[in-house]
Amino acid sequence: MFLHDKHLQFEAKPVKPDPLMAKRVQELIGGQYGEMSVAMQYLFQGWGVRKGNEQYKDLLLDIGAEELGHIEMLATMVGRLLDGTSIEHQEAAMKDPATAAILSGMNPQHAIVAGMNARPADSVGNPWNGSYIISSGNLLADFRANLNAESQGRTQAVRIYEMTDDPGLKDMLAVLIARDSYHQNLWLQAIAELEEAEGKITPGSFDRKLEREDIAFSLYNHSASSEESAEGSWAKGKTPAGDGKFKYESKVHVEGAIPELENPHPSLHSTKPKK
Amino acid sequence: MFLHDKHLQFEAKPVKPDPLMAKRVQELIGGQYGEMSVAMQYLFQGWGVRKGNEQYKDLLLDIGAEELGHIEMLATMVGRLLDGTSIEHQEAAMKDPATAAILSGMNPQHAIVAGMNARPADSVGNPWNGSYIISSGNLLADFRANLNAESQGRTQAVRIYEMTDDPGLKDMLAVLIARDSYHQNLWLQAIAELEEAEGKITPGSFDRKLEREDIAFSLYNHSASSEESAEGSWAKGKTPAGDGKFKYESKVHVEGAIPELENPHPSLHSTKPKK
Amino acid sequence: MFLHDKHLQFEAKPVKPDPLMAKRVQELIGGQYGEMSVAMQYLFQGWGVRKGNEQYKDLLLDIGAEELGHIEMLATMVGRLLDGTSIEHQEAAMKDPATAAILSGMNPQHAIVAGMNARPADSVGNPWNGSYIISSGNLLADFRANLNAESQGRTQAVRIYEMTDDPGLKDMLAVLIARDSYHQNLWLQAIAELEEAEGKITPGSFDRKLEREDIAFSLYNHSASSEESAEGSWAKGKTPAGDGKFKYESKVHVEGAIPELENPHPSLHSTKPKK
Amino acid sequence: MFLHDKHLQFEAKPVKPDPLMAKRVQELIGGQYGEMSVAMQYLFQGWGVRKGNEQYKDLLLDIGAEELGHIEMLATMVGRLLDGTSIEHQEAAMKDPATAAILSGMNPQHAIVAGMNARPADSVGNPWNGSYIISSGNLLADFRANLNAESQGRTQAVRIYEMTDDPGLKDMLAVLIARDSYHQNLWLQAIAELEEAEGKITPGSFDRKLEREDIAFSLYNHSASSEESAEGSWAKGKTPAGDGKFKYESKVHVEGAIPELENPHPSLHSTKPKK
Amino acid sequence: MFLHDKHLQFEAKPVKPDPLMAKRVQELIGGQYGEMSVAMQYLFQGWGVRKGNEQYKDLLLDIGAEELGHIEMLATMVGRLLDGTSIEHQEAAMKDPATAAILSGMNPQHAIVAGMNARPADSVGNPWNGSYIISSGNLLADFRANLNAESQGRTQAVRIYEMTDDPGLKDMLAVLIARDSYHQNLWLQAIAELEEAEGKITPGSFDRKLEREDIAFSLYNHSASSEESAEGSWAKGKTPAGDGKFKYESKVHVEGAIPELENPHPSLHSTKPKK
Amino acid sequence: MFLHDKHLQFEAKPVKPDPLMAKRVQELIGGQYGEMSVAMQYLFQGWGVRKGNEQYKDLLLDIGAEELGHIEMLATMVGRLLDGTSIEHQEAAMKDPATAAILSGMNPQHAIVAGMNARPADSVGNPWNGSYIISSGNLLADFRANLNAESQGRTQAVRIYEMTDDPGLKDMLAVLIARDSYHQNLWLQAIAELEEAEGKITPGSFDRKLEREDIAFSLYNHSASSEESAEGSWAKGKTPAGDGKFKYESKVHVEGAIPELENPHPSLHSTKPKK
Repeated sequence: MFLHDKHLQFEAKPVKPDPLMAKRVQELIGGQYGEMSVAMQYLFQGWGVRKGNEQYKDLLLDIGAEELGHIEMLATMVGRLLDGTSIEHQEAAMKDPATAAILSGMNPQHAIVAGMNARPADSVGNPWNGSYIISSGNLLADFRANLNAESQGRTQAVRIYEMTDDPGLKDMLAVLIARDSYHQNLWLQAIAELEEAEGKITPGSFDRKLEREDIAFSLYNHSASSEESAEGSWAKGKTPAGDGKFKYESKVHVEGAIPELENPHPSLHSTKPKK
Repeated sequence: MFLHDKHLQFEAKPVKPDPLMAKRVQELIGGQYGEMSVAMQYLFQGWGVRKGNEQYKDLLLDIGAEELGHIEMLATMVGRLLDGTSIEHQEAAMKDPATAAILSGMNPQHAIVAGMNARPADSVGNPWNGSYIISSGNLLADFRANLNAESQGRTQAVRIYEMTDDPGLKDMLAVLIARDSYHQNLWLQAIAELEEAEGKITPGSFDRKLEREDIAFSLYNHSASSEESAEGSWAKGKTPAGDGKFKYESKVHVEGAIPELENPHPSLHSTKPKK
Repeated sequence: MFLHDKHLQFEAKPVKPDPLMAKRVQELIGGQYGEMSVAMQYLFQGWGVRKGNEQYKDLLLDIGAEELGHIEMLATMVGRLLDGTSIEHQEAAMKDPATAAILSGMNPQHAIVAGMNARPADSVGNPWNGSYIISSGNLLADFRANLNAESQGRTQAVRIYEMTDDPGLKDMLAVLIARDSYHQNLWLQAIAELEEAEGKITPGSFDRKLEREDIAFSLYNHSASSEESAEGSWAKGKTPAGDGKFKYESKVHVEGAIPELENPHPSLHSTKPKK
Repeated sequence: MFLHDKHLQFEAKPVKPDPLMAKRVQELIGGQYGEMSVAMQYLFQGWGVRKGNEQYKDLLLDIGAEELGHIEMLATMVGRLLDGTSIEHQEAAMKDPATAAILSGMNPQHAIVAGMNARPADSVGNPWNGSYIISSGNLLADFRANLNAESQGRTQAVRIYEMTDDPGLKDMLAVLIARDSYHQNLWLQAIAELEEAEGKITPGSFDRKLEREDIAFSLYNHSASSEESAEGSWAKGKTPAGDGKFKYESKVHVEGAIPELENPHPSLHSTKPKK
Repeated sequence: MFLHDKHLQFEAKPVKPDPLMAKRVQELIGGQYGEMSVAMQYLFQGWGVRKGNEQYKDLLLDIGAEELGHIEMLATMVGRLLDGTSIEHQEAAMKDPATAAILSGMNPQHAIVAGMNARPADSVGNPWNGSYIISSGNLLADFRANLNAESQGRTQAVRIYEMTDDPGLKDMLAVLIARDSYHQNLWLQAIAELEEAEGKITPGSFDRKLEREDIAFSLYNHSASSEESAEGSWAKGKTPAGDGKFKYESKVHVEGAIPELENPHPSLHSTKPKK
Repeated sequence: MFLHDKHLQFEAKPVKPDPLMAKRVQELIGGQYGEMSVAMQYLFQGWGVRKGNEQYKDLLLDIGAEELGHIEMLATMVGRLLDGTSIEHQEAAMKDPATAAILSGMNPQHAIVAGMNARPADSVGNPWNGSYIISSGNLLADFRANLNAESQGRTQAVRIYEMTDDPGLKDMLAVLIARDSYHQNLWLQAIAELEEAEGKITPGSFDRKLEREDIAFSLYNHSASSEESAEGSWAKGKTPAGDGKFKYESKVHVEGAIPELENPHPSLHSTKPKK
């Protein structure tokens, strides 16, 4: 169950309107790694946690609820970045080159569809999509997804921070960037704990003897013209999981035949064999 | 530039047809974490690597090319799992309950659209989508995405391995699972190397003083009714990044006001203020 | 800002597992009119409410937060409907026709992707999509969207109620259906209030003289073979908005010419005129 | 069966080209509430109307056919707004700031993909999508969807009307806005008729005793910090449906327990319980 | 402008209900090559035809209007294939294996969302999408798209014809298949006419000297292990366009260097060069 | 199995950066007819070729592998077109109108998401989608799809060629355009070969007597106001397939009745018959 507090957790006030920044900030709301993604990812993961892992469940729901508040802060920011933008008399306005550049570059849906409010979409207008998130029931796999999301999210927030000179927008981004720092630390910590319990190769419960262990340590050189990767730390020495030794194979190991597939039943009306 | 070798890298021959397994195996081809995703993710990352990081570029292109071959193995497997499946006289066939269950459960597009071949789609028929992948130019962030992809992918392959008794399908999955093991080790290693160089909080090049460091170490308790997460290793002690100490705040820190947004220009024809 | 309470607002316990009902119940989570849609729609609308309409804002955030809890109840229900479902030895299992029908019909992503948990997707597996929702800044338009969403949502919940005999699932649906009843009443009331203030044709602030009022009251008969619609209450008499009288035109009013478009610049390399 | 008349129903001639307006006008063609949506929504609803409701069927097919003609008018308008736009020598053209703003803001697919014609997409380029429409078989629910669509559509058309000074474009929009006025009146009327027959809570055929009537009239206060919504007309007094009295509950009614989900079968390889 | 005639152009009456066939027939309505695709493709192409090509415009609008009627026939067919399907008491029904197979395999959205009517979606439930269609302004290119659409569409209709024994469904498919035959002949003819006028390489208006003609006739052998394609008629002899002679190059011609990309500005916070 | 050679097949070096061209060039990477589409289409088709058609398989895999290299060339080009673009201090930069136009028009995801690299998306930002491609198992149908793809692709490349004055970009496009010329010739040739073997109406294996041959040669005039199409070569004379004679019917042939659909079971809670 969820409760709402009308206070923003942190302030979201730009010094002045900027419809182009409003467009860019949308990436942090409804992009692949925006706040809608982390909120929904943590909540779905949390709702799926099973008996005996209540601590992880609580953690996921804590952070999921926090991220809902981040969508709110960003939506408020976008609304204010669009404040005061008028859509009237664009023909006249287009005569001023500076205004023209802003009008031609702003997201038309901010005006036409949303009445100068945020959209559940990214910076080029793709609507947010459930396929951005993952909740697999395997928490080590999922916490790695979470670490990735916070790493990508912080990178994007930092890039937007560099784009703006607005102190109000910078202040809010400084908050989001700091929280992404914490969340990276958090998932690093939770990952370490699970790796300790289950091993570094996930899922750890699968009997390694059932996989083809003879090919589980080799880097195959699929490059005809170069072997830079051969010198990497992933090509020799002990593996991080401690389960074996890396190998480099400069010629790809091939076992399979050239495949021949049977012709399908005539009722499929596929192409008949030429010979 | 790419070259093709008509040999499958590893064999892909089921012992007998099974249209339901063909449907499920599609997840490994065109799902969020299927082979199309890892192939395209590694290639786009590789193409974007900049001067001075040739080793990472070579690595990404090696593995990207390998994954293209995995799509091929899986597509061949799906074609063979569908071999011998007839679509004729389904009305008669539906009288046998075992056949009926298979016919009603198989992916209709395997027959109608693809003529008993694989589709660039997942196990419920969603077409593969470019928004499944990431290539950010920040390799630490991206290698974490890669580790996640291999972790999710191996979990899914393992689950499908458990579903089948077909020794041919099991053999091919044992190959894919082993390669996912190697790829997890590989990205763990490459991540460790980059964390060593740039720190664990990514992007490491952003001046930490610009973020709100005072709020960069706290877990906020957003749960009204429980505090299990307070006892976690992410709530006290040194952070994995070594940049500070975790804190737990049982009451959420709030700084923001209740937001009031200005009314937009009348040309937007939004709702007027009630009072 | 959001807070979470770990108690479900209402209970979500089926009497026994049922993977087929789990698949169907997904429509209420991630379908076009599922709880993700109403939650996100109300929250985005609420965040966009401007100064002077705080009462509507509070209302939208109240209901938006409630709907987040409904996703949670449904996700919990799906997890439990999948409990005890094993994916092992499906070949053997498929020999029992009743089991075969369930296995062939269940959503494969419930097992392979989500580990027997809910997905942010609908009953055929389409991921939830931001384009399902609307927040236009015009509250009369948006409340009509909300009334529609609750009408469609209740219809879908009622249909699923009819499909199941499980008393636990029926109990939870009886809760959701009741809340949809309240929400229909609620939006009917709020709509009446706004129609009172702004008129029934939205947006009410647009000067009617600027539209082509001479064609604003006619039903054009676009059907060559029948005129049943001519007898409807929408074809004669006073309009509900009280702005005029309905007219029926059995022959479509046509003003336009046959359009001729200029040939584009040769740099487009479009087809040249034949004559 | 459909017939086409090459005359546009109403004229669609801008006074001069304007690629930026062409981009914006796309929202009315292929947006969530564009003419493709209403055309397809009315047609699918019409095709699904069952015996005894021929009048509604005729109405839906009349309006559906009319909306097909609106797509045509808008597509013609977009073609003409793009007429005369050249794509050559953009480097030179970019030296003039006014031209530069137009070139940088125009939809690149108008030139590259469509050869200066309309696209089946919205103003930011998202292709039209079948999930924009609804046809449920419950006409009261669907007519509410239709009323919403006409309300959103008119709001968007009005906003675009405000953006342009082109008398030809304004004339065509004045037609579309007038038709949206009629269509709002029409659906209001048809809704009133169905509400009269079936009650205001849809579907009216579901036995109200089966839902949890004790919770069907309450507004729950999910806001920790404010109670503005308590004073609304939806929080006290008789409901619009006449089925009871509104209640306000300042503390959310909670019945559910903290959920515990069983651990899934080991074959899923999900995370094991920590304790 | 469009007019509707309530008569179906051809009959659409199955002998008996069949929810599984209803699911499959959806491919012909809302699939990539379903009737929604051809209808919208022909209409958008028709609306975009420019002055001097009125004959093609008329043709496209004739066929586009015809295809709208095909959607209608198929939607009616789906409604009838679902007629008499009850959703009640599924638990009891699942005890009969034949019924169980049907219930588990039917499209749940047919019942839950559409009330036993057609959906604007394909046979696995993906909603129809504007990106299925093309209208480029180059009619030779577009007529090739049309020929492809009719070829794929006829193949799919033929496959569904093979799946059913229902004489009513077979009759309607025999109509659609015959029309697809005509439409293939039609586009073959129109293509021949345009190839006559503009040449076979489209767009024919592009000065061939501007392209790299030295590499415009070679098949490069990208296969490391086989050269079957070398013997094809596309590898030697005169080209069909009559513009040169085919060549086969058993070793891929390579001109490019190994690319080195400059490091982006530090404000992007991408990975720094390792060396 | 695939191998990679780090050399670009052809050079991809613009003379200077141009973020707007980078946005447009994306259409050739991840658009409906971009290189991702042709690469994946040829590979899926190739993997699905059955025994006896090895020559077509080899051909498809040759060209598929070639197209993978084209994605690479284009991705490299986009990276370089973005080189040197800084995102800092945009507020200051916006004061120069020429820079402002570029900044407002560039794809924000190039900076924020991809760190100045290519995206798997089109020129307006839609991610590449598996539904762009077809592999039906019927090679005549599929080769027509391929001919269409190369025709659309060449048209788009030519249009972009016209937009730029950059000699480096023009050089690379001159390569792609030449290859599209070859590929059109190639598919024309392969199509002719298959038409020779199977006839021009595909699938040729379907017994023509089973279709409604009486309606397989007529163009129906669906236009109320014009008959230009009656004079076309598709309306009289021998068909290209040589299977009959074209007919023109100025009045549409109608066989069907006005459909009446039965009312669904009450458990669907659809609208009851009015009369």
